Amino acid sequence: MTDDFDRDDRHADKMRRIQAARRDMMATKTGEKGLLIVHTGPGKGKSTAAFGMAVRAMGHGMKVGIVQFVKGAMATGERAIFDAFPDLVEFRPMGEGFTWDTQDRARDIAVARTAWDEVKRMIADPAYALVIADELNIVLRYDYLPVDEVLEAANARPPMTHVVVTGRNAPQALIDAADLVTEMTQVKHPFRGGIKAQAGIEF
Amino acid sequence: MTDDFDRDDRHADKMRRIQAARRDMMATKTGEKGLLIVHTGPGKGKSTAAFGMAVRAMGHGMKVGIVQFVKGAMATGERAIFDAFPDLVEFRPMGEGFTWDTQDRARDIAVARTAWDEVKRMIADPAYALVIADELNIVLRYDYLPVDEVLEAANARPPMTHVVVTGRNAPQALIDAADLVTEMTQVKHPFRGGIKAQAGIEF
Repeated sequence: MTDDFDRDDRHADKMRRIQAARRDMMATKTGEKGLLIVHTGPGKGKSTAAFGMAVRAMGHGMKVGIVQFVKGAMATGERAIFDAFPDLVEFRPMGEGFTWDTQDRARDIAVARTAWDEVKRMIADPAYALVIADELNIVLRYDYLPVDEVLEAANARPPMTHVVVTGRNAPQALIDAADLVTEMTQVKHPFRGGIKAQAGIEF
Repeated sequence: MTDDFDRDDRHADKMRRIQAARRDMMATKTGEKGLLIVHTGPGKGKSTAAFGMAVRAMGHGMKVGIVQFVKGAMATGERAIFDAFPDLVEFRPMGEGFTWDTQDRARDIAVARTAWDEVKRMIADPAYALVIADELNIVLRYDYLPVDEVLEAANARPPMTHVVVTGRNAPQALIDAADLVTEMTQVKHPFRGGIKAQAGIEF
């Protein structure tokens, strides 16, 4: 085993090399553009990370629009905080509940259409720097809305507008069109241990 | 192809069955407890989802403590929003920068220790409903802090305190001890397309 002094020295050397490599890498990254971002996968954190981005953007004075396609997602916690910044964020829970709660396909489609019209309006308006279509993937998954229409609006977004789409089972066409795709994978979930949905965690 | 009426009917049936199954499943979930939560993996959204949970909890009037172990994570956006709720959130960026920027192992260890003492204080104080140790996994990965010490504090947390640890390469011992573990997987990243870190997205 080497002594601490040696180890610290090698550490500094190694870190200098990593720093230089990162600097060179980052120097090639000069572009700015509005991103199409997808949070998908069966794990938690898809909507939460999107709402976290909303807070981040709001902190920079950027205007955020959020449309929730599934009311059952219950963003009651976030809502209370968003309500304190009416000039920075427009939060529209437009879903009617999980589709297994409504049991009415025609109505679900109509609701999805109305919510989507709102997203389209926000995307088209350059005043919004970030537009979040929360759980839109669920709507696409059930064919309540054609994915082509979503791609068309996303591709026509103003150059600096970021669009975030969340929900499991993102369609491949959306993933192909996106700039940034993260899959949340469930490694371990407390429901398995009999723990119910809790404030601050699930809603 | 069946007509729309038939399809709607079958849909309602199927959704009724799903709803009943979910109701039965959720009825078995009655427990409440403070969770040990880990966000890990190479993808984006680990810290963002943790900060989203902070906002969620704050919205329920729950007090949140956040300690950032790596200053380079640059939560400038969130910070501006958190600052508006001084009674609900204590946000402490305590890292000195990425370890490849400091290049000083002894100092990194001392900084990690000071930050960890702050996390321990928050966990031990039942006034905090949610404590986030942001990028703690990086510190553990570099052996700047023994994982056993983290497990000891986490396991001794008050019964209703949630603890969230973020950062890639979570140690297996932490995953084993956690109630909820999500791995963020990178499917596609815009740095590859020459896009730099942007406000509202990366910071």
